Amino acid sequence: MKDAKPINSVQNPLVKRVLALKDKSRERKKTELFVLEGQQEVQLAIEGKYELDTLLIHPDVCNDEDFLKSLENVSPRPEFIHISNEIYKKLAYRETTEGILAIARSKSHTLDSLVLYSENPFILIAEAPEKPGNIGALLRTADAANLDAVIIADPKTDIYNPNIIRSSVGTVFTNQIAMASTSEVIAFLGKRNISIFCAALNASKIYTHVDFTQPSALVVGTEATGLSRPWLEYSHQNIVIPMGGQIDSLNVSVSAAILIFEGLRQRGF
Amino acid sequence: MKDAKPINSVQNPLVKRVLALKDKSRERKKTELFVLEGQQEVQLAIEGKYELDTLLIHPDVCNDEDFLKSLENVSPRPEFIHISNEIYKKLAYRETTEGILAIARSKSHTLDSLVLYSENPFILIAEAPEKPGNIGALLRTADAANLDAVIIADPKTDIYNPNIIRSSVGTVFTNQIAMASTSEVIAFLGKRNISIFCAALNASKIYTHVDFTQPSALVVGTEATGLSRPWLEYSHQNIVIPMGGQIDSLNVSVSAAILIFEGLRQRGF
Repeated sequence: MKDAKPINSVQNPLVKRVLALKDKSRERKKTELFVLEGQQEVQLAIEGKYELDTLLIHPDVCNDEDFLKSLENVSPRPEFIHISNEIYKKLAYRETTEGILAIARSKSHTLDSLVLYSENPFILIAEAPEKPGNIGALLRTADAANLDAVIIADPKTDIYNPNIIRSSVGTVFTNQIAMASTSEVIAFLGKRNISIFCAALNASKIYTHVDFTQPSALVVGTEATGLSRPWLEYSHQNIVIPMGGQIDSLNVSVSAAILIFEGLRQRGF
Repeated sequence: MKDAKPINSVQNPLVKRVLALKDKSRERKKTELFVLEGQQEVQLAIEGKYELDTLLIHPDVCNDEDFLKSLENVSPRPEFIHISNEIYKKLAYRETTEGILAIARSKSHTLDSLVLYSENPFILIAEAPEKPGNIGALLRTADAANLDAVIIADPKTDIYNPNIIRSSVGTVFTNQIAMASTSEVIAFLGKRNISIFCAALNASKIYTHVDFTQPSALVVGTEATGLSRPWLEYSHQNIVIPMGGQIDSLNVSVSAAILIFEGLRQRGF
């Protein structure tokens, strides 16, 4: 990385730019750029065919030669910047680790750009999820389960929120993700004969009594308000996880994982 | 609550005492007291037969009459304190909500004090979990699954850590929880003929191919280091969740939930 440009002043405009992209959803939308952090995250973004605009490397911390070499082959070639310890501390979430940030170009997440490779897709849909930690956990589970897609209906947060990227441990880059309004998503599923299974308390079957071996979409709402009326109207079958405790509530990412892995069990993994 | 004592100065020694109990595990151990916060949490602590020493109520915020009336019947009767807005803000995690904190007496969590009501117990064991959020999520799932007990082997954090109470949404009070060294827990399980199923990658069966209808203990380690050697030595069968993604790692509380609910499915819920 002989051509890496050094930056040592926290007053440098690039520092401001990175901070703005981290903090402001509006800035991310306007520029179609976002910031990610960490070696695994950068690796997964490259594998997920994200275009890297700039790599900011703290050379004292990020010095794994194989990793740095792999970055040389990234195409199109990003701009390489060496940043000082002071700048790294200002920009990074995790002071002690990894020494790398990147500015990357967002992807399109329309339903049109979604490619369902499987003939018998298994999809997770989250309606209007708000907490970045929950969204990250859902994406992590979706990656582990190798789901065909994750669709966010009526999104409230942009998925390049740094807290989502971080809590997803980079699986925001490995999942196929689409975002659209609830009515668009319902139309999309209808056209493809994908059955809708809503996690809901009314008129529900126990989730283990439902056949997930058909093309299936699992739909989960927020813990606070549940699913909106259109989802319940177009639901092929509501499903419920029987609970025996004193608090009838599992975290949404935990519920989703239980449902998803029951689907995988039925499908023979 | 006519006899509630008002406190208006943040200099009051009780304020310092509450802060010390929230912040310092040592203080909690020494006094055998801890602090909890929120109406549901207080309710569950009462139902869980925790002894409340002091109730600190912000009367402008916590004014649900039925709830307050229910507190009048708590026995032994706690001391009732009315706190000012300024004090509440200083003490509370969640500024905008609920208006109640309590000082409560810890319980004994030895293996000896654990009562297994079921003849065919189903137990969750977590070895040396560190992150309060993970411990809280495990407890929440254990409550929803109505497990017979949660055992923490080689505990690293005391369970009255405010972040554990909060992320457990009060289920730290509804679960039967024991803490002991790994060797003590293994002896306890052996004496009761409870089979040990370790979540581990080596010599593992897919978790759905294992019979959880027998007396069973599911054992999970930390995401970073997995389980220690004694657990693997005494494991009746290691179990694994097959994963197909690019990051082979589920959050520990998500993995535990998948395993627990497979056990419940086999047991007919």
